[in-house]
Amino acid sequence: MNFRISFEEAIHPELVAELEKSVTYASAKLRSFRVTADGRGAEVECEQGARAEVTDKVGKLVGAMLRSFRSLGEPEEIARRTRRDSLPIESDAFAELEKRKWVRVLGRGQVSLAGGAYALRRFLDEAVRDVAKTRFSAEDEDHPALLDTEVLVRCGYFRSFPHSVCFASHFVEDFDAIESFRAANAESDTLAVPEPSALTHSDAVLRPAVCLPVYRELEGASLPPGGITITTSGKAFRYESRNMAGLKRLWDFSMREIVFVGSAEDVEGQRTRMIEAVTSLMDAWDLGGRLVAASDPFFATVRGAKALWQRSRAAKYEMMVEAGPEAIAAGSINFAGTLFGDAFGIRTNEGEIATTACVGFGLERLVLALFSQHGFARERWPGVLREVVFG
Amino acid sequence: MNFRISFEEAIHPELVAELEKSVTYASAKLRSFRVTADGRGAEVECEQGARAEVTDKVGKLVGAMLRSFRSLGEPEEIARRTRRDSLPIESDAFAELEKRKWVRVLGRGQVSLAGGAYALRRFLDEAVRDVAKTRFSAEDEDHPALLDTEVLVRCGYFRSFPHSVCFASHFVEDFDAIESFRAANAESDTLAVPEPSALTHSDAVLRPAVCLPVYRELEGASLPPGGITITTSGKAFRYESRNMAGLKRLWDFSMREIVFVGSAEDVEGQRTRMIEAVTSLMDAWDLGGRLVAASDPFFATVRGAKALWQRSRAAKYEMMVEAGPEAIAAGSINFAGTLFGDAFGIRTNEGEIATTACVGFGLERLVLALFSQHGFARERWPGVLREVVFG
Repeated sequence: MNFRISFEEAIHPELVAELEKSVTYASAKLRSFRVTADGRGAEVECEQGARAEVTDKVGKLVGAMLRSFRSLGEPEEIARRTRRDSLPIESDAFAELEKRKWVRVLGRGQVSLAGGAYALRRFLDEAVRDVAKTRFSAEDEDHPALLDTEVLVRCGYFRSFPHSVCFASHFVEDFDAIESFRAANAESDTLAVPEPSALTHSDAVLRPAVCLPVYRELEGASLPPGGITITTSGKAFRYESRNMAGLKRLWDFSMREIVFVGSAEDVEGQRTRMIEAVTSLMDAWDLGGRLVAASDPFFATVRGAKALWQRSRAAKYEMMVEAGPEAIAAGSINFAGTLFGDAFGIRTNEGEIATTACVGFGLERLVLALFSQHGFARERWPGVLREVVFG
Repeated sequence: MNFRISFEEAIHPELVAELEKSVTYASAKLRSFRVTADGRGAEVECEQGARAEVTDKVGKLVGAMLRSFRSLGEPEEIARRTRRDSLPIESDAFAELEKRKWVRVLGRGQVSLAGGAYALRRFLDEAVRDVAKTRFSAEDEDHPALLDTEVLVRCGYFRSFPHSVCFASHFVEDFDAIESFRAANAESDTLAVPEPSALTHSDAVLRPAVCLPVYRELEGASLPPGGITITTSGKAFRYESRNMAGLKRLWDFSMREIVFVGSAEDVEGQRTRMIEAVTSLMDAWDLGGRLVAASDPFFATVRGAKALWQRSRAAKYEMMVEAGPEAIAAGSINFAGTLFGDAFGIRTNEGEIATTACVGFGLERLVLALFSQHGFARERWPGVLREVVFG
């Protein structure tokens, strides 16, 4: 059923997109939600009979977001890059990738990569790894995709992003509970969970970013002079409800990060080199876009977390690149201040709490942006990528 | 508390190790369980006051395992390889890897890899990929680590391995439930889940093997003449309770697989080449061990699944390699018959249900076996790996 709700005050234009994305978590019975042009209401579609419940839950979510909102104005532009390739952006590169079987949707937010798309993702990952090793002397490491739940507790993640967390739940050791689950599923053609309480959620989560295990690994460490730089890559997981679509927003996605851990001077001293590294990669890949000081510093909708974030002098630059009709964030530089140093007791050589920053790339989003910007004709692609994608 | 239980009949020697491993799932209150030398009983340690409960649950599990057990005799040896390196096996390579910070334990069954250990894992992965591409003309692909729950339902996994499955659970869209979770965790320093029913387990699981998304991806396909071969690599997940230890048994581990899908003739015709590929890799890495026809064909303890497996003419060869005091399975060749072809409606070019087989390598186990067999002195390592590990 369709209906309209009104807001007491108009939604600030800066908040509209964020609100439309977040409201999906308000109720499983909500089907769509679009803020009206004047910002004073929204067109809502929900399951039959759920109007009262949906109105109530959406109202609470909108209220919470309005209370924590603070306009930051136009985001400051740090750098801008125009493509050499002057042909128009592909409006639906994902559809063409699907047609070639270079991507296949296997489930909600679950996409497999093959052919030119997978070859490109591998190449991009290696290219960033190479920059990390040669320009930042980073150590290359690999971590589990599972993360002790406690790691997220300690950095305040459950105060901020509970809606997107994925718990790795499993049966508690118990013959009777496991046997009754087995029996219930012996002949069933859908999953049956007769006793949800037999499952535990407490010991592990799926990491929502690949840098998090690095801070856990450095727990209690005293860093060498100059700090350390680590690069790592792999799958990260965020449940994004109805917002999951194509390669733009996956439940299970790939990231390469470069993580800087050291004194405030060490890490802030690298700031210019981090910006240069990101823009020089955009140049190598002929990727058009902007690096902007993000108006949405990590913990956007949560007042307490935002304050914490600001106290720790965090900042975020986002790499916004064109991919079809809109720009997407395919990379970022994140200054976390002493947030992680504090949470994990990491100290500099001088005994101060360590400062951290990271440069991260969303590899599937980069793949999508590059196919959007260079299409499917070999000659449009920059030389360094041509062979990789088309063989 | 410690006590002893007796069995009505002696445990067959072939079953002892499997039973000691499986019994850990019987009760969370069980601390240790060891079958006596004569097989007629077991020494048990459990939490104070839990003797009656533990005895009951362990008894049921032992009963179920005895009922489904069928002796297969000594496993048939397919191939055997002796190391050129004649120095003794390292008794605890993991401890030395930890000392060098080439491995670090981040949580239960969660180990990070760095330095020589990570470089070696990357190399092994690439070496198998190279064999897949050059000797089997395999396509290289990548899949999500999340898998639609339905995929496991369809291939009968929940009838067989419920104890080791990990569900990716997340909050159902609901403002009130998410908000109450957020509030409960705002000031808590451990995880609080006030309403477990607000979490869903039904939509996705973590893949227990990296080949499973391949069958899902080929759902309903008609294969080209000669069938197809795919290689893929990444993290897989099995909750192994108290059996998780070091690099030998991880919750979150890395696998490289080569998957064969075609007619029975196509796939069985490749059998000799698969065995050759595994033994030639062992040779390149100077890895001592045996390839044996496994006495434990996949669904070991479940009568129904075992029958299904046997009907579909499945077989399994395991690559057993020395790693410290015992041999571990670090690779396998699995003939699944028409099990997956049936479950996903995959047909050959002639319209028959497809047959599948896969060659899989457990990369962390290979890393452990190689450090166990060649130690930490550069000159003991085969030339092809020396540079990789020691730079």
